[in-house]
Amino acid sequence: MNPVRIGICGLGTVGSGTVNILTRNKAHIDARAGCNISIVQIGARRDNPNVDTSKFNVTRDIFEVANNPDVDVLVEVIGGTTIAKDLVLKAIENGKHVVTANKALIAHYGNEIFAAAKAKGVTVAFEAAVAGGIPIIKAIREGLAANNIEWLAGIINGTGNFILTEMRDKGRSFDDVLAEAQALGYAEADPTFDVEGIDAAHKLVILASLAFGIPLEISKVFTEGITKIASEDVTYAEELGYRIKNLGIARRTDKGIELRVHPTLIPEKRLIANVDGVMNAVLVKGDAVGPTLYYGAGAGFRRRRKKASLASL
Amino acid sequence: MNPVRIGICGLGTVGSGTVNILTRNKAHIDARAGCNISIVQIGARRDNPNVDTSKFNVTRDIFEVANNPDVDVLVEVIGGTTIAKDLVLKAIENGKHVVTANKALIAHYGNEIFAAAKAKGVTVAFEAAVAGGIPIIKAIREGLAANNIEWLAGIINGTGNFILTEMRDKGRSFDDVLAEAQALGYAEADPTFDVEGIDAAHKLVILASLAFGIPLEISKVFTEGITKIASEDVTYAEELGYRIKNLGIARRTDKGIELRVHPTLIPEKRLIANVDGVMNAVLVKGDAVGPTLYYGAGAGFRRRRKKASLASL
Repeated sequence: MNPVRIGICGLGTVGSGTVNILTRNKAHIDARAGCNISIVQIGARRDNPNVDTSKFNVTRDIFEVANNPDVDVLVEVIGGTTIAKDLVLKAIENGKHVVTANKALIAHYGNEIFAAAKAKGVTVAFEAAVAGGIPIIKAIREGLAANNIEWLAGIINGTGNFILTEMRDKGRSFDDVLAEAQALGYAEADPTFDVEGIDAAHKLVILASLAFGIPLEISKVFTEGITKIASEDVTYAEELGYRIKNLGIARRTDKGIELRVHPTLIPEKRLIANVDGVMNAVLVKGDAVGPTLYYGAGAGFRRRRKKASLASL
Repeated sequence: MNPVRIGICGLGTVGSGTVNILTRNKAHIDARAGCNISIVQIGARRDNPNVDTSKFNVTRDIFEVANNPDVDVLVEVIGGTTIAKDLVLKAIENGKHVVTANKALIAHYGNEIFAAAKAKGVTVAFEAAVAGGIPIIKAIREGLAANNIEWLAGIINGTGNFILTEMRDKGRSFDDVLAEAQALGYAEADPTFDVEGIDAAHKLVILASLAFGIPLEISKVFTEGITKIASEDVTYAEELGYRIKNLGIARRTDKGIELRVHPTLIPEKRLIANVDGVMNAVLVKGDAVGPTLYYGAGAGFRRRRKKASLASL
């Protein structure tokens, strides 16, 4: 089997999970991929107790991975848009394929990164950048390729959805739930990206770019978060038969593609109104297939959730 | 652009829809595929008023398509397992790739067909065989490739789900709804395949084969339909907070892969309990991604459903 040698940069939740899955499911993954996939180097500033790296070549300098001639594919899971951008561009310059879960990086610098990759003849893959492990990028790009996409709408920020769900189910205030979400590790110490809709806007431009073939332009998204939602709003919505969800919406109009993130009232009978907690879901309407929906956990939440069994369908 | 020349055999609902979409969305599809996709021949015993074939080379002999040296890919949408099997094997023998939406054919003769295709170095693609336009085959095969699949469960027969939904929403009897479904064209004159769970069993073995890497063995599926469900059952379930859905379930156990199709009580709060009417949905539980759900219309129902707008999310 033709080997694929990967270097992983970053050992946070996503990075450590990646190493663990590639290790645990190696036989299975190699069989499906039709090649031997091996981790030849890991770059991380510090260790992570959730992963045993004693059998790997670990460096504290992530650029060593980008310059390592034995690395065919660099996996960028350090996050942020400064060092991550330099790292990805360096890897591309060195002729490496890149896999990234970094939605902010793709949303802000995707046009530049994809142009560099095209010039070098390498691939930049970013399935995990939107909606965690749900294969939504592949669905839009390949699965629905015969469709003209008319619109898409998604719950694409797990933290925000967790907060809205708790407010509804338990009548709690926004501030109260946010504090708990931070304690649980669902929300960052600075929750701006999640609660102001910015994270959802990053993901929305990525989905819209693929669905409509438009450039990535984060400045074009109307972006509103959930900080102005009071528990009374949630209660009134419930009494009227609605749920409040913060949706990212991209829609083809006569004037171009409309991009917006904001709280939305959804009739409680709709499937997407019942996507609760940290779960994500994206509805995609194609002219041939009609509406389709893709549902699953967002990135970073998996290890905290309880085990789902067949009995809890 | 490298041309791909296809021949379509069958002009029923699926075949006429295929011709219409390939014609209407040609520019878009060619751009996404990176090649010029043209229909060089159509084989059908009779015309279909839903499609204009005046600009195509139409033959009444479908085997002419399988023997046409100008055809690179044969699309089999005639249905059934006798002539369709001969047609597909002839196309493979002639070195053509095959696309089929025929779940019964794959479920019964897939092992033989895939072996023949492998020997000839051609591909047999069958995304539309399960859950219509939902890209569930691609999701299991590629999107979730890093996962060990633990179980999957799906509402994979639209006709049966339509009947159960009407019984619940309107308190109607099974026989009454079945008669209406037949009048609407949702159910065949002989509804056995749909109401006895056989169609769902065909789809289940296909999904299970991909998810667990097992051979296609339709005889191994415990198969029960919905004919014994009375409207009282549906009402009692509702009173207890449950919905009755006919599920196809495949599960990894210590003794091997368990395969079963039967009516199931599902708590009404679960997402899959709210998949109504002719819609399909498949839940897939991977060890890495957790539970994911894929939702959309089954094959053959699209043209009968009302237009979904963003307002009807």
